[in-house]
Amino acid sequence: MRPFKILPAFTLIACVALGFDATDAGADEAAANKPTMQEVIDASKPSDWRTPDPDNTLYMELPGGRVVIELATAFAPLHAENIRTLVKQKYFDGLTVLRVQDNFVTQWGDPNAEDETKARSMGEAKTILPEEFSRSAKDLPFTRLPDGDVYAAEVGFSNGFPAARDSATGKAWLTHCYGMVGAGRGNDAKSGSGAELYVVIGQSPRQLDLNIATVGRVVQGMELLAALPRGTGGGGFYEEASQMLPIKSVRLAADVDASDRSKLEIMRTDTPTFTALVESRRNRSDDWYLKPAGKIEVCNVPIPVRTVGNDKD
Amino acid sequence: MRPFKILPAFTLIACVALGFDATDAGADEAAANKPTMQEVIDASKPSDWRTPDPDNTLYMELPGGRVVIELATAFAPLHAENIRTLVKQKYFDGLTVLRVQDNFVTQWGDPNAEDETKARSMGEAKTILPEEFSRSAKDLPFTRLPDGDVYAAEVGFSNGFPAARDSATGKAWLTHCYGMVGAGRGNDAKSGSGAELYVVIGQSPRQLDLNIATVGRVVQGMELLAALPRGTGGGGFYEEASQMLPIKSVRLAADVDASDRSKLEIMRTDTPTFTALVESRRNRSDDWYLKPAGKIEVCNVPIPVRTVGNDKD
Repeated sequence: MRPFKILPAFTLIACVALGFDATDAGADEAAANKPTMQEVIDASKPSDWRTPDPDNTLYMELPGGRVVIELATAFAPLHAENIRTLVKQKYFDGLTVLRVQDNFVTQWGDPNAEDETKARSMGEAKTILPEEFSRSAKDLPFTRLPDGDVYAAEVGFSNGFPAARDSATGKAWLTHCYGMVGAGRGNDAKSGSGAELYVVIGQSPRQLDLNIATVGRVVQGMELLAALPRGTGGGGFYEEASQMLPIKSVRLAADVDASDRSKLEIMRTDTPTFTALVESRRNRSDDWYLKPAGKIEVCNVPIPVRTVGNDKD
Repeated sequence: MRPFKILPAFTLIACVALGFDATDAGADEAAANKPTMQEVIDASKPSDWRTPDPDNTLYMELPGGRVVIELATAFAPLHAENIRTLVKQKYFDGLTVLRVQDNFVTQWGDPNAEDETKARSMGEAKTILPEEFSRSAKDLPFTRLPDGDVYAAEVGFSNGFPAARDSATGKAWLTHCYGMVGAGRGNDAKSGSGAELYVVIGQSPRQLDLNIATVGRVVQGMELLAALPRGTGGGGFYEEASQMLPIKSVRLAADVDASDRSKLEIMRTDTPTFTALVESRRNRSDDWYLKPAGKIEVCNVPIPVRTVGNDKD
């Protein structure tokens, strides 16, 4: 008999909360035993989790199911507001996935955006926004990672998103990790609007940091965007309209009946539990690992998401 | 009119060689102008490219097309030899993709490996190999990157593969970047054989470095392994045999008729041209980039591959 499950699971947890009653004592005991990520999650308290704000949560309904996106209002408030305006107008309904470039991004929007006679009206939304590539780091919550970074002075997490900051410039920004969502723009800095969005589906393209407005993160349903057929045109754009996956609808969670909402909780990134989770990934205690890395890159830290109660999914 | 192609292309070049006649003077001129990656490639000389050894190149034929894998014989000679033995016995023909875990790996092998009564015979191949997780860095070619790394003392490229080394231990090893292929193992270090292989399809899982034998790299056809439906079982394993993509065949390029070979060239990683390519990615001169990163992670450096002459693909 030969080994079968030869690599350890690396899963963004999507478990049903079972009303576990972990105590501080339990957490301490787990820490003493170098807990695995799963043990950290199992020992977490209700206060270690947060419910994303329905006013900042998008449901993109695709033929294969629902993608849930949390908007990063602390980093891109103008883009978030414009995207909300577009969504309330049902702007994205019937638009399509335009581009899937292997090891880079999946991108969606109006396939006729370049043709003024056919482009969909953006209605009350702005067609061009100021750049929101970074913000002041002052007074911004920031849970710093211990291991440094190739690209930024400091990396960590802020408001549940992977982020970077630099005391020399006083700026903070979101890092382009897997699942991060950004707003496309042309060559001019002020040329994005949020009407065309992309999500990272490969190795973190950190060279995009500080060059584009990062507006949110996919918290559920990444596989619906990452496993699409790659486009065969330049940059992974689809060459035929028939290849473009249609978007059924995009809605704000707040505008969806409570019974149809995805009942998700996201692990907070500013708690001792999250610090313990990071440590469980820096030094894997799973039996399989012979040599724990002792380090971690910001884009390798999972942010657990769980489904609570009776969920639509 | 709104911007459409809003993100620059990030493409592993697969261009037909046109017998260009770049000179050193041309390369110098390009360098002075901060060339883009495409300009570096356009100015490259024939000697900047190498043809992968047909004895170290695998063709995995899937229903969607051919995946080309180059074996890393300098790092995992025993695994490479065992895989060659398996391939010559047509071991992989009719086996399947077993697992696709989003943002981690696609893995293939014998779905019956755990059942001694049904498992396919490995014939002349060894069922267990010594660990080949690292090797001596002595006398190993190594093109070091200038920007450091979170996980390793030094990173760069060796024999065309992304690699790391550490003068404190005298060891070198391959880094788990997108497209890297490894040999699954059980919890015991000496439990892999090359009969079950995986490829990285997401953010580089560098925690696997030094824990498993990395045996090669997909040099063409990654999209055929990265865009597969994710498995719904634990760790992304498929739960039903009907979900498992069948492998039509795996052959050594040397055993395929010359007319059916993929005529690929891979950019050498030990030349001034490659150094210029790295610089073109550290500091993008494309019009779109407003703030070049000035740095690069080893797993963000593309290794260009091109098709020459009349190719099967």
